[in-house]
Parts: sequence; C-alpha cells; structure tokens
Amino acid sequence: MTIKIGLFGLGTVGSGLLTLLAEQNNKIKASTGLDFTVKTALVSTLTKDRPGLDPAIQLTTDPNDILNDPEIDLVVEVAGGTGSAKGWIKSALSSKKPVITANKDLIATAGQELIELANKAQVPLLYEAAVAGGIPIITTLQNYYRTDTIRSLAGIVNGTTNYMLTQMAQNGLSYEKALKQAQELGFAEADPTNDVAGYDAAYKAIILARLVFGLESTLDELAITGIQEITDDDIAAVKVLGGQLKLLFTINQVGEDSIALSVSPQVILPDSPLSQVHNENNAIVVNSDNLGQTMYYGPGAGARPTAQAVLADILLAATATKESHQVFSSENMRLAEPNVQAYCWILNSKTHESIESAVHELDDELNGYIVRQGSHENSNNGSQLVLYTKEITTANHDRLLKELTQKRTLNKEFVIYPC
Amino acid sequence: MTIKIGLFGLGTVGSGLLTLLAEQNNKIKASTGLDFTVKTALVSTLTKDRPGLDPAIQLTTDPNDILNDPEIDLVVEVAGGTGSAKGWIKSALSSKKPVITANKDLIATAGQELIELANKAQVPLLYEAAVAGGIPIITTLQNYYRTDTIRSLAGIVNGTTNYMLTQMAQNGLSYEKALKQAQELGFAEADPTNDVAGYDAAYKAIILARLVFGLESTLDELAITGIQEITDDDIAAVKVLGGQLKLLFTINQVGEDSIALSVSPQVILPDSPLSQVHNENNAIVVNSDNLGQTMYYGPGAGARPTAQAVLADILLAATATKESHQVFSSENMRLAEPNVQAYCWILNSKTHESIESAVHELDDELNGYIVRQGSHENSNNGSQLVLYTKEITTANHDRLLKELTQKRTLNKEFVIYPC
Ligand SMILES: NC(=O)c1ccc[n+]([C@@H]2O[C@H](COP(=O)([O-])OP(=O)(O)OC[C@H]3O[C@@H](n4cnc5c(N)ncnc54)[C@H](OP(=O)(O)O)[C@@H]3O)[C@@H](O)[C@H]2O)c1
Ligand SMILES: NC(=O)c1ccc[n+]([C@@H]2O[C@H](COP(=O)([O-])OP(=O)(O)OC[C@H]3O[C@@H](n4cnc5c(N)ncnc54)[C@H](OP(=O)(O)O)[C@@H]3O)[C@@H](O)[C@H]2O)c1
Repeated sequence: MTIKIGLFGLGTVGSGLLTLLAEQNNKIKASTGLDFTVKTALVSTLTKDRPGLDPAIQLTTDPNDILNDPEIDLVVEVAGGTGSAKGWIKSALSSKKPVITANKDLIATAGQELIELANKAQVPLLYEAAVAGGIPIITTLQNYYRTDTIRSLAGIVNGTTNYMLTQMAQNGLSYEKALKQAQELGFAEADPTNDVAGYDAAYKAIILARLVFGLESTLDELAITGIQEITDDDIAAVKVLGGQLKLLFTINQVGEDSIALSVSPQVILPDSPLSQVHNENNAIVVNSDNLGQTMYYGPGAGARPTAQAVLADILLAATATKESHQVFSSENMRLAEPNVQAYCWILNSKTHESIESAVHELDDELNGYIVRQGSHENSNNGSQLVLYTKEITTANHDRLLKELTQKRTLNKEFVIYPC
Repeated sequence: MTIKIGLFGLGTVGSGLLTLLAEQNNKIKASTGLDFTVKTALVSTLTKDRPGLDPAIQLTTDPNDILNDPEIDLVVEVAGGTGSAKGWIKSALSSKKPVITANKDLIATAGQELIELANKAQVPLLYEAAVAGGIPIITTLQNYYRTDTIRSLAGIVNGTTNYMLTQMAQNGLSYEKALKQAQELGFAEADPTNDVAGYDAAYKAIILARLVFGLESTLDELAITGIQEITDDDIAAVKVLGGQLKLLFTINQVGEDSIALSVSPQVILPDSPLSQVHNENNAIVVNSDNLGQTMYYGPGAGARPTAQAVLADILLAATATKESHQVFSSENMRLAEPNVQAYCWILNSKTHESIESAVHELDDELNGYIVRQGSHENSNNGSQLVLYTKEITTANHDRLLKELTQKRTLNKEFVIYPC
C-alpha cells in the first residue's frame, strides 16, 4: 500500500526527511508493507535551487494543494512558525489526516488546542521531533511511563548553548568565540537570542510539562535565565570542585497540584549522569516512583536526527499494530570476529626500569599504535605500565604482542582489556 | 472493561507487579478504560507465607488452571527457567493469549521459536523486562529505530557485576568483599556464577542481537569473559589515565552479513557516556546512521523496575491504539515555586583574605547549610570562593544571602547558580 505524504516545508528537516525516506524505503516496505512517498511539498519560493530533488515531488506555494488533495493520507509540518502552520495543522486534522510536526514553538504555545482537536477527530498528532530531536522522549513518556508516576524531569534540550558552554569550559573559548563557532557549525542561527536566552529550552520544557503533568504554561509565566551573563570566572569557579555549568530545564512536582518549572544555567556535579553530556548533545533525566532515575541521551537537533524522529512518527501513525516490529532488514546475519578494536595493555613488572626500557626499545613499533600511556606503582612495590592502543585488527594486535613479549629485557606479566 | 491476567510466578517480580497494579490501577483505568486484575497465580508452594496478598487472587500449582481458563485474557510469565515456562508460553500463544515475560534465559535460548509462534498466532509476545529491567530498550529499538540503520550496540546490562566493579574502584573493596556486599543488598544470588562469569549479560546481548540484526546465536558460540580474573592492580592501573573497568557487551556489524558479539571487562574512558554508569545501574549505547550515538540509562533489575517493564508491556499488548496517551492523572496542575533547591555561590573578591574572613564570621550560620567549598584565583588576580549549599527553601536561601551580604568585611560580588 502506498501512503502519500503532504509535506509543509522543504528546508533542513524537510530535505532530511526525503534523504531518509530514500535510504529506508525498502526496509520499511519489507517490514510493514507500506510504501511512503512525498506527493506534494509546500515551500515559500518555487525558484530556489533544490539540488537532487526528486522531480516526481510536486512543489507548491499554495497550502490547499495539500489540504484539499484527497489523495494525501498524512501531513508532515516542518515549515515552522506559529502563524500559518497552525491553520494548516487544524485543517489537516479536521479532514482526518494524521499530522506529524517538528514545530516546538507551535506545540508549546498552541499544543493543547491542537491535541484536543486531534483527539476529537481521532487522528494522531505526533511531535517527537519537537523536543530533543533525536531522542525518543515523547513516545517513551507516553508509552512506558503511563504505568509509572513521574516526580520530576530535568535536562539539556538546547544543543547550541550546551555546545557553547562545553567549548568555554573545555577549550577556554570566550562567550563570543563559542557563539561564533556554533554559528559556523550550523548549531546557532544568525540571531541566537532564542537559544542563548533560554526560550528554546523553555518551549521544550512547556511541552514536556503538559505531556507529563497536564500543566498549561506560557513563556512569560516562567523563570527563564539564559547563558548570556555567564562569565569566564564563573566557569572557572564551578570547576574548582569538578562542576560544570549547563543550561538546564527542571520540572518538579512540589505539591499535590503544583509544578515548579525553570530554565537556567545550573551547576552539574561530576556524579550526575548529565555530566557527560557535552557539545551539541541533549539528555533528559526522569525521576519516577517505579524506576528511580532514568536518562535518555542523544543528538538534540540536525537534519538527520530530527528527520529520523519525524519518520519514526510517520510509521507510528501509519502502523499502530500489535505485532512485534523487527528492526533489521537482512535475514542472513552470522557471527564474526570484530574488525578493529582498541586495547588497554597493563604491563606489570618487578621494576619500573625494565618496563620503561622495553617500551623504549619498541618505540618505533609502538609509536604508530599507542595513543596514551601512563605508569604507577602497583600493590607489590612493582610497577605498572598502562598503554592504550589505537583501533587495530586482531592480527596486528597479535603481532605487536608477540614482538613485545620476545624482548628479553621485559620480565613482566600482561593483562589486556578491550577498550 | 476488565482484563484478567494469569500470572506464572509470584516471587520478586510477580509480587512487584501486584504492588504496581494496586498503585496504578485508577490512573490506568482513567486513561485507557481498562481494569487489569490478576485472576490466578501459579506458584510452586501453596503453603508459603505471602503477607499482604490479595485473597481474591486464586493461587495454584497447576498451570492448566491458567492455560485452560477461557476467562483469562493475558498471560504474564515471571517464574523463570527454560523448562516448564517454555511450554506454558507456547500453550498460551497457541490459544491466542498475549504473553508478557521477563525470562531472559528463555528468550535468549528459545526466543526465535516463540516469536515465530506469536507472529503466526498474531498475538503479542513482549519481553521488555528481559533486558535491562527498567530501561525501555526493546520497545524503543522496535519502534524508534526501525526507520534507522543500527551499526553497533554496547552497554552494561548486568547490575551485579557493575555494582561490584564500582565498589572495587571507588571504595577500594576487594572482589570478595564487593561480592558479599552485592549479595547482602540482594543484587547477587547465593551462586553468583551467572552474573560474574558474564552469562547473564551474554543472554541479554543474544536477545538484542536477534532483535536488531536477526542474528541467532548461543552462549557457547560467543567470546565471554567474566569479571573473576580482575585484580586490584588492574583496577588501579586503568585508573592511571582516568579509565574504569566495566563488564560490557558489544554487538558490532563488521561486514555486510556478519556481526561480532562479545562480553568482557572493558576499559571505559572518561569521555564515554558509559563512564557515569555506576553501581547497579545499566545503560545501552546505540550507534546508528541517523542518530549517531544515543544512550538509554536506568536501573537494570529489582522488583519495581522489572515489574514496571512488565506492566508497560501489559498495557502495550492490551491497547495498541493510535491515540496519544496522556502520562498524567490529575487535570489540575498549576505552576509553583520549587520546594527546595541546592545552590552554588560564587563569591568574587579583591583579596582572598576578605572572603575567608567573611565566611569565617558566618561559620555558625553556614555550617549547617554548606556541603562543600573551594577557592581559587580568578582572572583579575582576585579570589573566588565557591560554596555549595544543601537543598534549602527559597526563604532560607534569601535569609542566608541577606546575612552574608550585610557583613561589612565582605567586599565582593555574588553569582548564584542552582545546582
Ligand atoms: N533544524 C533542526 O535541527 C530542527 C530540530 C528540531 C525541530 N526543528 C523544527 O522543524 C521546523 C523546520 O525547521 P528547519 O530547520 O527545517 O527550517 P528551514 O530550514 O528554515 O525550512 C523551512 C521550510 O519551510 C518553508 N516555509 C517556511 N515558511 C513557509 C510559509 N509560510 N509558506 C510556505 N513555505 C514555508 C521554507 O520554504 P523555502 O524552502 O522556499 O524557503 C523551507 O522549505 C521548525 O519548526 C523547527 O523549529 C528543526
Ligand atoms: N528479580 C529481578 O530483578 C529480575 C529482573 C529481570 C528479569 N527477571 C526475571 O524474572 C523472572 C522471575 O524472577 P524473580 O526474581 O521474580 O524470581 P523468584 O523470586 O525466584 O520467583 C519465582 C516465582 O515463580 C514460582 N515458580 C518458579 N518455578 C515454578 C514452577 N516450576 N512451577 C510453579 N511455580 C514456579 C515461584 O513459586 P514460589 O513462590 O512458590 O517459590 C515464585 O513465585 C525470571 O525469569 C528472572 O530472570 C528478574
């Protein structure tokens, strides 16, 4: 069966979706029997150069070419904005077409109205891509946690600011330099206000608070602090005890019927699972009665991750079956050896000198393969040398080991771990 | 509508499920219209004391009391073992009853046969609880990644060994002491072989490799190394460069049609998202074409998390609708201030002495509230004092701040971050 998609928007996410559909279509067809194809795409400029665009896709600037087309089964809105997009979605839902959107601004501000409309029309309105692009947080909260009681959520849902703060803390970049780098890499827009002032994170927090706690809230009701006031001194100061500054949203149930919601730079201590969430990555921590602390980590934005969230939603909307979906496409997988692997070698020796000299002799050999090394005294007053190899083949690893053990100066024992 | 459950097993997970059903039943009823109730439970000893057990639940030692009861809509298998359990599940599937199981040994060894039977009968066979108890990895892989191409998975799926290795590395416990402690806490069984030899992790890896790559494999085909040979010296050695030893499974696609699968202690470097997975927690890292690296983190076992996975599966099996599930139960949430919050205070001062003396004066006040402090020079040759408070109310925080700023000796600027 062919499912015809009407696509509003053919920018970063829209063209990402076309790429993914092309790559995944055979697999999807094999596992679901469904053939997804974009029939019509709405853009604002017909004359724009769109290299590689499938000529079978009809471009239009008239939304009615999608909304009034009875052949179109499903609508994807990745144009953005809270104006026209709202009308398109309402119209599509009213004519019983499932809608998938990545539009966080719209879902944050008008989500309740749209969700009610979708429920009344009994068609899905899915928006996985609107919060933390590549992390399936919405679906997971809806399906997995509906048998649990969530007490709080917190996390990093803005990739731009997390990238900037990571660069400032780890590489000593100034705020301005970090912002410029984020813009060059395509993480930040020319006007970065939405990100650095915390509004983007706040929109996502509003969406999550509605989904999890049924809380309706608006930007101006919330305590929102951006990252603009953070100084290099602040960053250095929190480092003193191993902390890091990150722009966090927090949603906490603080009473029977009340929820505290904030967005602000917060100190993340080293034992937090959020402490390893660097650069453009996102993560959301959930605290619930049954599970305690759980965390979902992944890319927060970008063409592929966001389009993946949209495509997963498209499949959800089209195939709500009870069948176990298979994830794979080939039926013929067999067990094999790993291709390449990094290793950690631990060399125990009676004396520090014997190891050092052995490694010295092998320097030529090892130079190309060893990325880091260190040594210290072990528990028997002997010495341990720790070497980390690059990713190498099993054959290369065996050869290196053989050469090393043949050196007569080396009176040692080996321990090897993959790495 | 009432859904009657037949429960095989009333041990840790089975009684956990009864607790969760009692707690969540109203919410589930409100959101789905379904009333789940356990009609019959199979145990091995009828005479065992089962405090608090709902007398309405019929206990039996005869599986046919469940399998031949036409009133039973759905079967949950949490008895364990690969013998009788397999027969019960086959019989239930054949009579078109959905089956939920937590039985990793059985799904690893006989999963393919059971899945085929379920697909033929067109009833769900769900086993979320079998891999990493409280982490919804199976459902997420089935739903979210079926539009992506996964290249590798790796992770920590055995809570017992991760607990032991964490204790050995962080608290200097010996292997024996760490094992004893794990047993006392209920993480490890009297005979811990299955965990420490890596078999439990291998079963879970076998299940994941089948789901994601369609690979059929057995324990004896795999390279499995446990944690029994790890010495204190090894643990100290990998620490030299910030590494940690953890028992990892890895599944890598290494060629068009081949998969490398292993379980062994591996070195986790500090920049890995797995480096913050401590004690009994589990985490699974997925690498895929569309998303790059994603991670799912949470509790690996225990009554509540495992029962939560079972209950979520029960709902999935009973309600495969296209509707957006709401996660909350109350409709009346309102915005509020946070209850308590920890803070990081950064005090900038011209001289180190002025801050030290101010804090000294306030010692009595602060003593109860400050948990950690440190200081260093800032970029203007002044000094920064960094204090971390306990979790305190906003009112208490305001009072403390006021008192501190009133001290005349303190010529400084404050920066405050939540923490
Ligand atoms: N980019 C990300 O990483 C990301 C992540 C998560 C969510 N999102 C959300 O996804 C949505 C799309 O983002 P994007 O980055 O793909 O935006 P984009 O690159 O700016 O693309 C927008 C597309 O929509 C079209 N469009 C916009 N307004 C229109 C109008 N009024 N009438 C007709 N066509 C219109 C544009 O037409 P032209 O091609 O003719 O200009 C363009 O094709 C936004 O809601 C955004 O918040 C994006
Ligand atoms: N515990 C966890 O954290 C966890 C986590 C993930 C998965 N799992 C899996 O969940 C399953 C159950 O684990 P558990 O910890 O709950 O086990 P458990 O505490 O040992 O309970 C087993 C239950 O099954 C009953 N039973 C066992 N064999 C039986 C037989 N042949 N006939 C009748 N009744 C039988 C026992 O009856 P009696 O009450 O009369 O002894 C008991 O009620 C296992 O497959 C396990 O691998 C457990």
